Formats: sequence, C-alpha cells, structure tokens
Amino acid sequence: MTGRPTLAVVGATGAVGTVLLGILSQRADVWGEIRLFASPRSAGRKLTVRGEETEVVALTEDARAAGVFDGVDIALFDVPDEVAARWVPVAAAAGAVVVDNSGAFRADPDVPLVVPEVNAHAVRRRPRSVVASPHCTTLTMIVALGALHAEFGLRELVVSSYQAVSDAGQEGVRALRRQLSLVAGTELGTGPGDVRRAVGDDTGPFAEPVALNVVPWAGALCDEGWSSEEMALREETRRILGLPRLPVAVTCVRVPVVTTHSLTVHARFEDEVTVDRAREILATAPGVVLCDDPASGEFPTPADAVGTDPAWVGRVRRALDDPTALELFVCGDNLRKGAALNLAQIAELVAAGPE
Amino acid sequence: MTGRPTLAVVGATGAVGTVLLGILSQRADVWGEIRLFASPRSAGRKLTVRGEETEVVALTEDARAAGVFDGVDIALFDVPDEVAARWVPVAAAAGAVVVDNSGAFRADPDVPLVVPEVNAHAVRRRPRSVVASPHCTTLTMIVALGALHAEFGLRELVVSSYQAVSDAGQEGVRALRRQLSLVAGTELGTGPGDVRRAVGDDTGPFAEPVALNVVPWAGALCDEGWSSEEMALREETRRILGLPRLPVAVTCVRVPVVTTHSLTVHARFEDEVTVDRAREILATAPGVVLCDDPASGEFPTPADAVGTDPAWVGRVRRALDDPTALELFVCGDNLRKGAALNLAQIAELVAAGPE
Repeated sequence: MTGRPTLAVVGATGAVGTVLLGILSQRADVWGEIRLFASPRSAGRKLTVRGEETEVVALTEDARAAGVFDGVDIALFDVPDEVAARWVPVAAAAGAVVVDNSGAFRADPDVPLVVPEVNAHAVRRRPRSVVASPHCTTLTMIVALGALHAEFGLRELVVSSYQAVSDAGQEGVRALRRQLSLVAGTELGTGPGDVRRAVGDDTGPFAEPVALNVVPWAGALCDEGWSSEEMALREETRRILGLPRLPVAVTCVRVPVVTTHSLTVHARFEDEVTVDRAREILATAPGVVLCDDPASGEFPTPADAVGTDPAWVGRVRRALDDPTALELFVCGDNLRKGAALNLAQIAELVAAGPE
Repeated sequence: MTGRPTLAVVGATGAVGTVLLGILSQRADVWGEIRLFASPRSAGRKLTVRGEETEVVALTEDARAAGVFDGVDIALFDVPDEVAARWVPVAAAAGAVVVDNSGAFRADPDVPLVVPEVNAHAVRRRPRSVVASPHCTTLTMIVALGALHAEFGLRELVVSSYQAVSDAGQEGVRALRRQLSLVAGTELGTGPGDVRRAVGDDTGPFAEPVALNVVPWAGALCDEGWSSEEMALREETRRILGLPRLPVAVTCVRVPVVTTHSLTVHARFEDEVTVDRAREILATAPGVVLCDDPASGEFPTPADAVGTDPAWVGRVRRALDDPTALELFVCGDNLRKGAALNLAQIAELVAAGPE
C-alpha cells in the first residue's frame, strides 16, 4: 500500500456497521477513502463517517462489474454467513485484504482468526487474503483469558454465557423492546405460561420470548445437542490460544440485555494460581479493565460495560477445591470489542504492515 | 401426634408464604388447624387457606406468652435469618417440629437439611426439633443431580446461576417492575451508563439495576470474594448428597426474571456417562421433567417452569472432551420447589412419622 489505504465497510447499515462507523470516526485516522456497502435495500442511504456524509453502494453483480472494489486495500465485512461466503472472495480477488466477521471462514486453516491483544502475529500469514474475527462470545473473554494463559498455562475451561440480544442484530433488539413493552407494567412473570401468552408467536429471531426470561439456545443445532455458538466458542478459543486439544465445555444462554455479553469462566491452569497475581495480570493487560471489589459493590455488569471498548473482569476467585483454577465474571460490549472494534483493530494491524 | 396435626405458617404474608398457602390448599389435606403468623405490621390481615379465611397473628412476645404455639405440631418458617434465629427455638420449645427456610440453621450439624426426593431419611434425626430446607438455588438443581449421582457417582460440579428477583421477596419483584417501567419503550441499553442513569439509586434490594442487566452478586460477602449464596450452594449440595469433600465451583448471577431460577451445570462423575442413560434417569426421576429436544426447539426456560412444581431439565449433553461429564440446563420455580413446596413436602414427611 502506498499512501493512506482505501477502506471498504461492507454491511455498513447493520447494528455492527453502525458502531463500526462510529469507531472509525473516533480512532486515530489512518485511512484514505472509506467506501460503504450494504444490501440493495439500503443502497443510496447516506451515512456519516469521520464527519463526512458518504453514500451507501449496493453490493450487486452490476456494482462489482463496475469496479467498486478496485483500489480497495482492506475490506471489513459484517454480513450474514452466506453473503460473506459469496462476496468475501470477490473482494479478495479484486486485491483487498478482507477482515470478515461472519462464521463463513473462522474454521478455515488458511484464514487466520485474530485478536490483536492475543495473537497479532497470526495476521501475517493469510494465503486467501482473508482474516477472520472471532464470534462475539469468544471475544468477550479471550483477551483476559489470553493474558492469564500466558502466565499460568490454560488447561481446561467451563463457560456459561449471558448473551445480549443485539448479537442477533437490530432485529434482536427490536424483538426485546417489543416484548418488554408487552410485559412492563403488568403482573406477568409469576403464573404458568403468562409471559408466553403475552408475547405470543412474536419471538423475533429467538426460539422463545426473551423478556422476563432466559433462553438456553444460540445458533443452529449441531451434533449431539450442541448449539453452533457453543461449538464455535470451543473451536475459536483453541485456535486463538494455539491449544488444539483444550477441553472446553460451554452453555450459551440468551438474556434480556440489549448490548454487552457476560460470561462466567471456570479456568483450570497448569500451575497453581493466586488471586493476587491474577489481579495484577488483569489490571495491566491491554484491553482489560479489572473491576473487582465486592466489598464496595464493585463487579462488572453489562450496564457498566456497554458502549466501552475493554473487557471488564471481576469476581476473581480461586476455586475453593482446586488451587489451579480461577473463577471470573467477564462483560464486554458485543458490538464493540465483540465485533466492530476487533475488525478495526485487525484492519489497523494489516495496514501497519509489513506485508 | 394424634388425629390431624396442627400446622403453623410463620411468614404467611410474604412472597413464599403466599405461594405456600396456595400449595397447602391444593395438595392432599393432611392438616387439622392451620395457624398463620407474620410480623406485627401484617397482624389482623385475613388470608385464605383451604378456602377458609384465617386471621394473621403477630409474632410477638405477648403472643408467645399467650400460648399461640401451644398445640402446634409442625411449624413452617419463612422469615429473615435473624427472625428465624430468634423464633424457631421458641416454636420448638413449645413442642413443634420446625421446618425452616432461612439460612440460620442450614449449616447446623444437628439440623438435617432435607430434600424429600433425595434424602428423605435424614428428616428422622432432628435433635433440635428443627429441619432445614435448602436455599432455592440449591433446590433448583439438586433433585435432578441427586438422581444422576445415584447412578453415576458425582465427583465435581461447576455451576452458574441465572437467579430470579423474587428470591429477594416481594421487594425484589417490585424493584424489577419499577425499573422495567423506566426503561421499557426507550432506546436505553446501548449507551454507557444509560440504564444506570434511568434507574438511579432505586435498585431496591440489589446492588445494581437488574432491568436490561445481569448482576453477578447474590447474598453477603464471605472470605476471598465469594458470596454467601455461592458458599451455600457448595455446602448444601455436599450435605444433601453426603459428599463432604465434593469440589463445587459456583458463580451466582441475578437476571431480570420475576420467578424461576435457572442453572447451568457441568457435572463430572466417577463413571463414564451416556446421554441416553442420563435422559432415561431424568425422564423417570420424581420431581423432574425432561424437556430436551432442541431439534424441535424444546429446552426449559423460566417462562415454561414458573408456577409449576418440578425441576425442568434440558440441554443434556456429554462433555466433548470428557466422557465422565454431563452438561445440563435446569429451571425451577424458586417460590415453589425452591421454597414453599419443599417446606410442605418436608412437613408431610414429618407428619407421616414414624416419630
């Protein structure tokens, strides 16, 4: 790349795209031209990035033929898996390095899966000119976990998630708001079936009502009763940490929170751990905020972490029955570090070279 | 006891007391007189039990002196710990067997901690004439876990909770409803601090806002950063299952659900497990409903389990990296089996004798 690189944002009008344009406007500006793309439905809309109004271009065969990807150095994709599978190779073939947030390439051994604080080096080997960003649930914990792994050597993980609705996009947020307006101000929530009756079939992108409820399901059904998001957290954690046989047990659960995922983490290490040393590591790790003083009512919650960049970590305890295990509670904004921010950070890494 | 035993309900006007009167009205009626007690604030109120209006008597020194506990065979207590510590011995001294739902006696080696489906035998040895009922979080999982332990031999537990607000009583329910009415219909939940600003200091009995949030704290602060509810789940599980050295790691988290606790459970056993055999056990265990067909969208949620008696169990999977471990998701109504129903079941066990 000579001069300032040209950036494309594909999926600019979605929940993640919206946050991404804000992040690109706030961070140190290393970009030349920024081009915005979305589905034909959103074409022609004008969005503001870095204070400039920019027209959204439809991602179509005609547009491709007209050369809309020509000269793009780096393309950030946040689109559904099937759209990514179709269009990421198109952008790569046109000469861009693609940083993709879909699930389409995360398991591809020729596509590095990158979290800059943990495995920045991996971004350099990208034979398909594609770099993948992990799923938001993995990103909630992986920065803190990577720092602890570097010191203690991770040996086993048991994780439960408390996932916000916005990882199902704006449709997920609208579903929760609609359901909340149906149940707020009522006496619902104590009788058999009353929430279900109030919400009706209007569960949006979720399997069950999420207002006044928690739903132990996220993603598609895989073998033996596992959900795709549970499998993804296991596989992605193994890839990012370079621990291909790490035992990982996960249960993913949706909760009525708009934005910011939370996770409980039971992490067993090779060596004996101390809470003091774990706190020191977390207090100084880039991208992590330690928020852990329960005597003063200090522990992370989504209401604290939302709209911020770092992973918030608290409730740091050593397991009472195992001196090699730590318990953590971690919160992270699923639209920021869980998606848009990690894309922007990877793009900056790529732009910084060396090629 | 000769004839039908006289029952006292102490704490009759609270969230659990209200559900308890309903349960006593629905179950096979083995009771003679039922006397209702509450704090002086509620004295004189009339409540309906078994279709009869009954006046609530104030729990005071004057009432005790007047002999209000005379002739009571069994007294069910659901009151704060300090009230139980004061009044449970009074009722026992007056000749009653007390079944107590507070934390005041759960760790006393001379007070059995009883879940009728799991350790009914323990109810017979009660040197202080007191039987304790476990905390609602323990009760959410213990019936299903006891059945699996009987077959496979439990060796280790990692648990995360999704706890409803009603285990903080009617005050907890009012706090959530008030907060929901402040945030419903707004765009809150995506900006830094916006939920906190909307809710203000009005967090009720909780450390943080619970609407559009999850709060990783329940109970009081114990040593080394553990909460009292986390310690209780560990100690109670060990006592009930008769496994005094069982490793148990727990994180308790409050969620914006009115009633019904949920838990993720990672349970490691002595022997290799199979999902088929685990499902058979759960499908036939008394007090358990197996709800586990994710291909048809079947898994338990609080919206399904609320207002019902059993523990709902689903998401039954064998750990991918450990053939001795099972993953479960369990939901149970914290006011029914988590409190009132277990009290009523213990009372029936005691009443059935033998003394």
